[in-house]
Amino acid sequence: MILKKYLLTAAALAALPALAPTVALAQEAAAEATAPAAVPTDVVFILNSVLFLVGGFLVFWMAAGFAMLEAGLVRGKNVTMQLTKNVVLFSLASIFYWLIGYNLMYPLGDWAIEGWLSGLFPSWGVLEAVGVTADKVDDYSYASTGSDFFFQLMFAAATASIVSGTLAERIKLWPFLLFTIVLTSIIYPLQASWKWGGGWLDAMGFQDFAGSTVVHSVGGWAALTGAIILGPRLGKYKDGRTVPMPGSNLALATLGTFILWLGWFGFNGGSQLAMGSIGDVADISRIFANTNAAAAGGAVAAVILTQLLYKKPDLTMILNGALAGLVSITAEPLNPSLGLATVIGMAGGTLVVFAVPMLDKLRIDDVVGAIPVHLVAGIWGTLVVPLSNPDASFMVQITGIVSVGVFVTVCSAVLWLVLKAVTGIRVSEEAEINGLDMAELGMEAYPEFSKG
Amino acid sequence: MILKKYLLTAAALAALPALAPTVALAQEAAAEATAPAAVPTDVVFILNSVLFLVGGFLVFWMAAGFAMLEAGLVRGKNVTMQLTKNVVLFSLASIFYWLIGYNLMYPLGDWAIEGWLSGLFPSWGVLEAVGVTADKVDDYSYASTGSDFFFQLMFAAATASIVSGTLAERIKLWPFLLFTIVLTSIIYPLQASWKWGGGWLDAMGFQDFAGSTVVHSVGGWAALTGAIILGPRLGKYKDGRTVPMPGSNLALATLGTFILWLGWFGFNGGSQLAMGSIGDVADISRIFANTNAAAAGGAVAAVILTQLLYKKPDLTMILNGALAGLVSITAEPLNPSLGLATVIGMAGGTLVVFAVPMLDKLRIDDVVGAIPVHLVAGIWGTLVVPLSNPDASFMVQITGIVSVGVFVTVCSAVLWLVLKAVTGIRVSEEAEINGLDMAELGMEAYPEFSKG
Amino acid sequence: MILKKYLLTAAALAALPALAPTVALAQEAAAEATAPAAVPTDVVFILNSVLFLVGGFLVFWMAAGFAMLEAGLVRGKNVTMQLTKNVVLFSLASIFYWLIGYNLMYPLGDWAIEGWLSGLFPSWGVLEAVGVTADKVDDYSYASTGSDFFFQLMFAAATASIVSGTLAERIKLWPFLLFTIVLTSIIYPLQASWKWGGGWLDAMGFQDFAGSTVVHSVGGWAALTGAIILGPRLGKYKDGRTVPMPGSNLALATLGTFILWLGWFGFNGGSQLAMGSIGDVADISRIFANTNAAAAGGAVAAVILTQLLYKKPDLTMILNGALAGLVSITAEPLNPSLGLATVIGMAGGTLVVFAVPMLDKLRIDDVVGAIPVHLVAGIWGTLVVPLSNPDASFMVQITGIVSVGVFVTVCSAVLWLVLKAVTGIRVSEEAEINGLDMAELGMEAYPEFSKG
Repeated sequence: MILKKYLLTAAALAALPALAPTVALAQEAAAEATAPAAVPTDVVFILNSVLFLVGGFLVFWMAAGFAMLEAGLVRGKNVTMQLTKNVVLFSLASIFYWLIGYNLMYPLGDWAIEGWLSGLFPSWGVLEAVGVTADKVDDYSYASTGSDFFFQLMFAAATASIVSGTLAERIKLWPFLLFTIVLTSIIYPLQASWKWGGGWLDAMGFQDFAGSTVVHSVGGWAALTGAIILGPRLGKYKDGRTVPMPGSNLALATLGTFILWLGWFGFNGGSQLAMGSIGDVADISRIFANTNAAAAGGAVAAVILTQLLYKKPDLTMILNGALAGLVSITAEPLNPSLGLATVIGMAGGTLVVFAVPMLDKLRIDDVVGAIPVHLVAGIWGTLVVPLSNPDASFMVQITGIVSVGVFVTVCSAVLWLVLKAVTGIRVSEEAEINGLDMAELGMEAYPEFSKG
Repeated sequence: MILKKYLLTAAALAALPALAPTVALAQEAAAEATAPAAVPTDVVFILNSVLFLVGGFLVFWMAAGFAMLEAGLVRGKNVTMQLTKNVVLFSLASIFYWLIGYNLMYPLGDWAIEGWLSGLFPSWGVLEAVGVTADKVDDYSYASTGSDFFFQLMFAAATASIVSGTLAERIKLWPFLLFTIVLTSIIYPLQASWKWGGGWLDAMGFQDFAGSTVVHSVGGWAALTGAIILGPRLGKYKDGRTVPMPGSNLALATLGTFILWLGWFGFNGGSQLAMGSIGDVADISRIFANTNAAAAGGAVAAVILTQLLYKKPDLTMILNGALAGLVSITAEPLNPSLGLATVIGMAGGTLVVFAVPMLDKLRIDDVVGAIPVHLVAGIWGTLVVPLSNPDASFMVQITGIVSVGVFVTVCSAVLWLVLKAVTGIRVSEEAEINGLDMAELGMEAYPEFSKG
Repeated sequence: MILKKYLLTAAALAALPALAPTVALAQEAAAEATAPAAVPTDVVFILNSVLFLVGGFLVFWMAAGFAMLEAGLVRGKNVTMQLTKNVVLFSLASIFYWLIGYNLMYPLGDWAIEGWLSGLFPSWGVLEAVGVTADKVDDYSYASTGSDFFFQLMFAAATASIVSGTLAERIKLWPFLLFTIVLTSIIYPLQASWKWGGGWLDAMGFQDFAGSTVVHSVGGWAALTGAIILGPRLGKYKDGRTVPMPGSNLALATLGTFILWLGWFGFNGGSQLAMGSIGDVADISRIFANTNAAAAGGAVAAVILTQLLYKKPDLTMILNGALAGLVSITAEPLNPSLGLATVIGMAGGTLVVFAVPMLDKLRIDDVVGAIPVHLVAGIWGTLVVPLSNPDASFMVQITGIVSVGVFVTVCSAVLWLVLKAVTGIRVSEEAEINGLDMAELGMEAYPEFSKG
């Protein structure tokens, strides 16, 4: 209605041709102002930052998920130690990723020592000034640096949380924490810069949306290397048999899994890195739905398989199946259809059911099943990307998996061996038998519940 | 200041009348562009989708709440089974609501088999394309289909979670899971289409904002039917007496209640279905405040009543009182004042305190109190809508309650009876006495804590 | 490109000087409309309200955190009571902060009885009308009243949650609940109005961003007063020795800490009170990052100190260290750099390690360590504000701390003493020895787990 009216006016003005553009322009402007469609650029910045803040607090919450999962899957005598490790590793990751890791990962892209050294100190002032305005913001077309830092930090911390589960019930506290510091400040950020810092893997076309390789396999390789160097728990493998050492609290383990599942919406959804357009928010919606579908697929695969193989569904396998589904979809949560996402998750859950006994056959003692979940399903998720993402190449995906794997394994092995030589990494036999809680901390998690 | 300046210019132009509209228009446009008030339509779409994503992850979190609540209220020997059921039922709901339910519920409105059959396969491509633009989006004035699907899925899963608590400690795993599949893929979506798919109940004017009837009573009727057909636990009713079988972990049950309370903000708030205007966000704020008020009212009613009736406050009643308050406000969380919301919740909590022993008198064994909470308070919440919503009619509300009740009860009864005949639905007496965990799963939740 | 084109047109129009402003204006308008930068005012309102809703549900979640932390740190025989207190105190706070507190705190600014009395009843209709529009909204430049109420309510409830932990294991249920009612409806809102209601402390320039003093020290002073009047638990101090009474479930306590940590992002981030501009969202991002840094600093300080002092890291100290870090940064989470935030948190964690045994020396029995965490670190956090905020003065900060402290201590003392005289506040010796759960509630939290 309004437009028509002014078109008539414009016609009346045809005798004054020099003015016509003014009128037309004013009409356009009016149309836009009355019912503007486009997202104002300030709003894009705000929405992108909100995505990182909400995504970030969801991934923070995964720290609680890892803590509960692991505390539920260790035996009662080691629960306090497992909780202590999880709280402190997250805290150390927060400090050292800020001091070193964030700066090492981002401004560099590829790894360049000199750039890192000069870049180290600027990271101290990583956040924008208070009350910053559009012209002073670090990247007006992206998001606030503080929100980006907050979000990225949580990924570094998640990587470290993966390791603590595998090595539970026998590793010394302080050497483990030292490993965490190096992992989150150096090992993780360096390899992450290859892809997410715009480094050589990114240039090659390696695809890893939210980190099946960059986060999960890194935690998995570090855990695998540690498990081999540390050796299995006393009595775990006896006369060629694997002795079951059931977790002390499956309710806690289930809670941990639900927490991780919830946090994963932030992990994968936030990795869209933008929420300021219709396309971006619809993509985040796809990612949420696909992430949930893959988790569901992993759990269902595990319940069916354990029923068929062992005649009894196995809750810990179901929990790890769901987590493996989540890891599997993490490399590419956007492009698959819901059906494909479900199938990718089911394959992840299936891999866990077979990988857990296989590790035991290799006498690699992974207390919570983190290696099958994060490493095996992480590799699977990275390999399957080309199926739905035409930009991905199978060979490049393998290159990424292998190069990250070799780098992390070598670094971790050196570090674990140095720690073993210098401080020792394993508690005494007596401490292991009595439980780390009393031996190392003098404090029981459930002091009143007598042991069966 | 700016406007005044240009009004003067306009006055100077009065000698050129044909041009005046141009100037006025430009002034308006400038005013709008300098300080635009209206929400750009793209931003509306984004904010609506964000509402579904945040609301959706909060309702997802309710799955963890149900799991913890139920695991805390069953006895130690059945905890692993209860956890297993909750994880797997959510996973199955995710898959089958996608495969069948979502499509059955929405494109149809009212139930029409032929429409459903032809509509089945399109649901596989339920999500918008990657990087979708405004002109390609399914409903530009609403939200991304992916976010809508994600949100709706969580409601279907919640319905199934309600059933698992009532039937705990005696039902077989696989028949229960089969029931879940039919409930979430067919029974729930069909009746939900009557109201939320724009079907006949909606046309009649039935009011159920977030699902006191559509979600909670449906879970409640399915649970009630199951409880009657399944029968009470062994030894629950002896010589006319009800034998207390206290839950094994009230901390877990309390945690579950807090999780549900938190998730309910998404459940009710997200059901506003829009967040792109001042009115919508103020309405969501009302809903948050009212939802909290009703929960608080339910808990306070229960603590006072159990103190008066039994001389001792009863924590499980208080938890169920809070939940009943939440269910009561779910049919109309928007219109009531804070005071009315509190009173509606108090009435819900009161109903629970009286309904729990009444069910026991009828020898209907509801392990966690889901029937009082979800069915009784769900009916109450639906009935009370006309008090604050002038569009609601008492007779229509009753029509909705009864028609949904008859439909779900008949479908559930047929299904339970078929399952009973074909596979059996109840574990053996021996398994029930020894606990489902060892008998059916070979795994204890708390293997180290000796039983009292 | 577009601009250039019209500048040429404008040059051509130079012969018609009266029209030039029109053209220039239209150009500006077009530039704005094509790529509008500014946030539309409706969007500002929406984003501010969303901040309160998301911040509010995160602070709600802290109620669960307090419940789990406290349930984990009391002995098994008092767990049900501690859970009951936490659920009911939150519910009562919800009702009484609405009935009295919110109205008492805000319209007044400074404390004025007459204003309060006349203002009492309007608070019943605290929320905006359903479907409100911009011209009817209470404060168009701020946020919906419903969202503001929801957010503020959670702060009042948090204050009460702090008290319940200190007084655990010996206080009677109903007197404690009566105290909660007065605290959340009168004591908390009155002193909060001094700062946040625009009262005299605010006029003086007292700085307390999210409530190190206004919330945390208030809970702390009320707890301290209660602990002194109530006296220590039986057998806690014997022959000059402090008898350890270890918490029953450290997994639960750790979960509670993670929940509080998560909720704190809403507590501090939401206190920015605005999210509708680049500056605001960047500030919220700073706050998230600083809040996390302070928590991490507190935990790391505690693990290092307990290792050095006691040769064994102490998990409960680490948890309280993280919480003290959070309290410490709450008075000023915006201005510090990440490094300063970490150091402020470390100092908070350090204070806890020394304050816990000091309280024991004074024979003040604080079951969960809430006084060191919320009062001592709250004072520290308030004192340290001038270090990063040039608007803060050390003397004014002290004035705020002392005046709030005196007011809350006097009010609490009078109230505790009245309750002691009228109803008694302490359970019988027999009830305390047998545990409050059986004696007062007739219900155990973990009935099947035999006591060690």
